[in-house]
Amino acid sequence: MPTYDGNVLALAGGVGGAKLALGLTRLLSPDQLTVVVNTGDDETFHGLHVSPDLDTMLYTLSGISNPETGWGLAEETFNALEMLARYGADTWFNLGDRDLATHIRRTQLLGEGATLSQVTTDLCDRLGLAHHIAPMSDDPVRTWLETDSGHLSMQEYFVKFRSEPSVRSVTYQGWEDAAPSAEFDRALAEASRLVLCPSNPLLSTGPILALPGVRERLAKRAGCLRIAVSPIVGGEAVRGPAAKIMRELGHEATCEGVAKMYADICDIVVIDEQDADLAPAIRGLGMTAVVAPTIMNTEADKVALARIILEL
Amino acid sequence: MPTYDGNVLALAGGVGGAKLALGLTRLLSPDQLTVVVNTGDDETFHGLHVSPDLDTMLYTLSGISNPETGWGLAEETFNALEMLARYGADTWFNLGDRDLATHIRRTQLLGEGATLSQVTTDLCDRLGLAHHIAPMSDDPVRTWLETDSGHLSMQEYFVKFRSEPSVRSVTYQGWEDAAPSAEFDRALAEASRLVLCPSNPLLSTGPILALPGVRERLAKRAGCLRIAVSPIVGGEAVRGPAAKIMRELGHEATCEGVAKMYADICDIVVIDEQDADLAPAIRGLGMTAVVAPTIMNTEADKVALARIILEL
Repeated sequence: MPTYDGNVLALAGGVGGAKLALGLTRLLSPDQLTVVVNTGDDETFHGLHVSPDLDTMLYTLSGISNPETGWGLAEETFNALEMLARYGADTWFNLGDRDLATHIRRTQLLGEGATLSQVTTDLCDRLGLAHHIAPMSDDPVRTWLETDSGHLSMQEYFVKFRSEPSVRSVTYQGWEDAAPSAEFDRALAEASRLVLCPSNPLLSTGPILALPGVRERLAKRAGCLRIAVSPIVGGEAVRGPAAKIMRELGHEATCEGVAKMYADICDIVVIDEQDADLAPAIRGLGMTAVVAPTIMNTEADKVALARIILEL
Repeated sequence: MPTYDGNVLALAGGVGGAKLALGLTRLLSPDQLTVVVNTGDDETFHGLHVSPDLDTMLYTLSGISNPETGWGLAEETFNALEMLARYGADTWFNLGDRDLATHIRRTQLLGEGATLSQVTTDLCDRLGLAHHIAPMSDDPVRTWLETDSGHLSMQEYFVKFRSEPSVRSVTYQGWEDAAPSAEFDRALAEASRLVLCPSNPLLSTGPILALPGVRERLAKRAGCLRIAVSPIVGGEAVRGPAAKIMRELGHEATCEGVAKMYADICDIVVIDEQDADLAPAIRGLGMTAVVAPTIMNTEADKVALARIILEL
């Protein structure tokens, strides 16, 4: 008997989201799962279109990601980047040789008129990945952070400035004119279960939920059980700057703070065992709190958390 | 005392031309030498602008070329290309990881509005190369071969089809609308010595000489000693398909055949010691024949041949 017999829509950003998505792919057939990924981090490096979150998802789900970092490819080399530096290019964004092939291919296909959705499907197919990854939109959306070190793109903030500047505001440039991708739109209409993966609520799921109509459609969806997994555990992000930015922007950097940000679109919040004492506060927001081990190190951890979510 | 105190214009194509150009850079100061390179082989691979002859020259003169092949870079890796193949890209043209950086950088700068001359100068500067390399033109010219295997670009013929098809004709698409680059134009006016490097007269120097006005200007230049080095030795090309194509197109595949192709623009033909018996025939064409060792294996060979040419 299958673990779950409905259709799941997972919204994800970076490494944490990709880990849970991997668990979901192990339990669901390709036609049951749509993984929609943030593209607010997309940036042009060396004239090439780089989609960091799509790539982390692609590499993770196809089993070729770097297990040490969570992003990039396993056994990667950096010879092209070293040469680009010799040519005077700005190489603060670490692009490996195999990784560059992804960006070269994507840029070429986009230049030939393909949509980002079509390119993503093609890359998945070529890597033998049966499950569907879709960009949140085929239109450009760019996450900008107003900080005490200036106006920074997401990658500038995260990689170049190591998430150190203090953040004053976050905006998703272009969101008003960006439509959800066709696969996202379809999943929004059909999914019987929504999973907000443990991704940064401001920088990863934030751009996805900002797309016109998305938040409203999720708020009104009948027959869809909506589950968020908190990326904040014990008052800190499992990885990345989520807790820091939440604090800087006036949110509580706790799983309760996450729950508040999702209160209108979420029925259940999965929180870590370390945060069991915050379950009553989440229930007080009118949501169900489920306590579970949410730290995913091994593949078994990822599948176990996915199973808990599907069996709710 | 310097070997030569005038200005030299060298016209070159692939590996043989780069070898002699290297010898010339060892004897001439940067302001004495302009190396003009064929761009008829330029092609777009994976959306990137590749200039094979410019790159061979750039890598050779800056001392980072692969000494085994003569093209590409020393200690190169091919990880990006392997990944591009996984993505379904056509990877018959061998592009290494460091080499890709050149094409990525060039494509980016061209996309930002730089000319191919400006890009080439920038790449040279960045690699610490003091001597001037100029593309023959900033306008696109493409060498096509009509063969018994179809209409092939130079790289398709040379790399994909390993120079095997029989050639019926060679055309330089776009030549009518292509102007010599500014550096080429200046050197055409100022050079006191022209060196036609030992490159394929149909596929390497051919496109350069086909540019509007170039052949006529070289034919009329007073005060310029014009010297060609035969790429054909003992009836065969030192490397590449020059002899084969010359035969297929009705030329004699000898240094005398080369001399005939350059008779209107050349005063002296340097032929290899193996071909000393053909010197009288070349003199019969109204040109001076100089017999010298023209096979360049070591750097000493390259400098020695350059010295002979400069001391003529």
